[in-house]
Amino acid sequence: MSSHLANIDRKRLEQSIDELGRIGETPRGGLTRLALTDEDKRGRDLMVRWMREAGLRVTVDQMGNIFGERAGSQALPPVMMGSHVDSVPTGGKYDGQLGVLCGLETIRALNAQKIRTRHPVTLAIFTSEEGARFQPAMIASGVMAGKIALEDAYNARDKDGIRLVDELERIGYLGSEPCVPRPFRAYLELHIEQGPLLEEAGLSVGVVDGIVAISWARLTIHGVQDHAGPTPMRIRHDALVAAAEVVTGARTIATELGGDLVTTVGNLVVHPNIVNAIPGKVTMSIDMRDPRDETLEVARRCLDAVVEVACEREGVRYELEHYWRVPYTPFAHDVVAAIERAANAAGARWRHILSGAGHDAQYMAAIGPAGMIFVPSRGGRSHCEEEFTPMDDIEHGAATLFLAVLDLAGRV
Amino acid sequence: MSSHLANIDRKRLEQSIDELGRIGETPRGGLTRLALTDEDKRGRDLMVRWMREAGLRVTVDQMGNIFGERAGSQALPPVMMGSHVDSVPTGGKYDGQLGVLCGLETIRALNAQKIRTRHPVTLAIFTSEEGARFQPAMIASGVMAGKIALEDAYNARDKDGIRLVDELERIGYLGSEPCVPRPFRAYLELHIEQGPLLEEAGLSVGVVDGIVAISWARLTIHGVQDHAGPTPMRIRHDALVAAAEVVTGARTIATELGGDLVTTVGNLVVHPNIVNAIPGKVTMSIDMRDPRDETLEVARRCLDAVVEVACEREGVRYELEHYWRVPYTPFAHDVVAAIERAANAAGARWRHILSGAGHDAQYMAAIGPAGMIFVPSRGGRSHCEEEFTPMDDIEHGAATLFLAVLDLAGRV
Repeated sequence: MSSHLANIDRKRLEQSIDELGRIGETPRGGLTRLALTDEDKRGRDLMVRWMREAGLRVTVDQMGNIFGERAGSQALPPVMMGSHVDSVPTGGKYDGQLGVLCGLETIRALNAQKIRTRHPVTLAIFTSEEGARFQPAMIASGVMAGKIALEDAYNARDKDGIRLVDELERIGYLGSEPCVPRPFRAYLELHIEQGPLLEEAGLSVGVVDGIVAISWARLTIHGVQDHAGPTPMRIRHDALVAAAEVVTGARTIATELGGDLVTTVGNLVVHPNIVNAIPGKVTMSIDMRDPRDETLEVARRCLDAVVEVACEREGVRYELEHYWRVPYTPFAHDVVAAIERAANAAGARWRHILSGAGHDAQYMAAIGPAGMIFVPSRGGRSHCEEEFTPMDDIEHGAATLFLAVLDLAGRV
Repeated sequence: MSSHLANIDRKRLEQSIDELGRIGETPRGGLTRLALTDEDKRGRDLMVRWMREAGLRVTVDQMGNIFGERAGSQALPPVMMGSHVDSVPTGGKYDGQLGVLCGLETIRALNAQKIRTRHPVTLAIFTSEEGARFQPAMIASGVMAGKIALEDAYNARDKDGIRLVDELERIGYLGSEPCVPRPFRAYLELHIEQGPLLEEAGLSVGVVDGIVAISWARLTIHGVQDHAGPTPMRIRHDALVAAAEVVTGARTIATELGGDLVTTVGNLVVHPNIVNAIPGKVTMSIDMRDPRDETLEVARRCLDAVVEVACEREGVRYELEHYWRVPYTPFAHDVVAAIERAANAAGARWRHILSGAGHDAQYMAAIGPAGMIFVPSRGGRSHCEEEFTPMDDIEHGAATLFLAVLDLAGRV
């Protein structure tokens, strides 16, 4: 290698980012490519074409996960790179996309330099990572890790009642390979940070030590629907008034407990949702995350209390369901160490960091040694059209991925 | 007349309520018959058939308002009765429906007893009273009163962008009669109270003195959409957190100013509305009502302050638009007096009352002498499937309407 970044063809990588980014592009330069829609199919088709052109053997499993394998010199478990190509609504062009494209660039760079590795190198594209259309998030790596039953995943429905399995079939990605834990030497996922820390510190790469614990709850509040005019305040049971107190309370939990705890009400739906009717029903989500499982447990108990007090005050019934919980996920020491060496070798300015977002790497860590590489998000922003990472940082990230893969797969 | 209630055929009225109520009936016995939908068309068609069978001359105006005239002995302005047949989503079978059906029963009772009146008697069905699909509410009587431009009403769009005028044409109710103020001796609207006062006092009839002042505002809050995980609390600008403070603030305005002021946030929409994204945008409505225009003015200034403080605290931009305002509407003394006499003659237990809801009678009062008759709402509930008024009360209300019409139209 003439230079640490010479492995990576920056122009080719940038062109691929542009080309994939045009599928589902929004007028303001963002991306809407919800899982298993026509746009998702077109994104997958393009990736499969590129993977085949790079000489990979492509297979699709029962959850629509796509795997492209580059053979190794020995019959060993592969070093896997992976991420996803689905997006949130009016999201950005980097979340997920960058991981699969830097993985593809790694394969292309290995090919260009005719490098042989002992372990095979596999690029994985996971189905429906975002959880924007089908819940929960990371459903397909969850099935692969044995944490979610295949049948439950198949029966996940979008807001129009359409089943995940029917959409998989419709777009032609209901594969036949079993979706079960498969052995791997290491799983590596490059991803945008989605937070402000790398940019604030002027760094190109984050070596991710683990993923924070996450708790998702669903709250349904049953008020009494009534006319907004002739109903005196004294007899009202307004589901939205109680819901508003929970939104405020969720914010207060984060500010009171402090530290790295974050709480978000991202989804809130009012029924019947018209100007002149007192809301009879509100459904809402509460998302809470913290590096420490114990803090998240305290936050959950605080939320229970906030909901109880708010609903009792307004005289409304409720159901609160803590339906998804992922504990703190530490990444494998040897993988983290390989990424550190690679970042140094790539000449990247880097730091250790935690991931505040769930990723497929989280489930992959449950079945084998996993690690992640972060690149900066401008303004810390993601899941929005303004999502952006400078090419200089992407190049350092991709070079780190390439060198870590080479390290772990073993050059022959 | 052998008895004060003998004019009204209770069984016939009850059957008509049942039959009209089956069009757009919900599984739980409520009604979803949004303005200018197929269900609205079927409701209108049934009413027009009944009106023609009762010998009325039926005409339709440019806003789809339906008028059925029973000739008088002299060429005088008619005594009009009216209400509407559209409903809110998952509303009830009494709001609006009862007014047109008691009006029809009055016509039928006049026919059955072969009564001739000096003034013609006209039954009116107003288009899109609820404002649930097309805004503002009472749009068609608003055009008739010259308060809303015909073109603006035609261009009102539902949430799918469909124009009111196109739907009027589609269902066959884009009439040719000019929608302009027409002379009338009196306008009478029977309606459910939609509040708890008559039931609490054990009364059958409310003689309505006027309609409270109403103010509608629309608030759009622009936050910064971002990922719910890796975005530290310190850099968040969450549109829903600000919106929740406004919901709470609107409630506080009502409880602090007290009296008869009511405030409601009935409509609230979050964008992008997914579990793991910090809300980037919220749009919401604020509905405020009070018998005194001055109190409502104070409430509006309080709302301005609440919105400013909430949005400044969260660091979000906003637009607040007070887009609809109706001052207190007193009804005509002679019409109110005629209703009082009729209620007494009908043997109804009654009281004076104010209407907390807007009605077409509000706009009609701007162009001629108007009045309203209320009947009780069980539990004070309306705009919901549980809406209910006992037949004994309906019978007293219908008899009051019949006698007031006869009084004002003059028996020959």
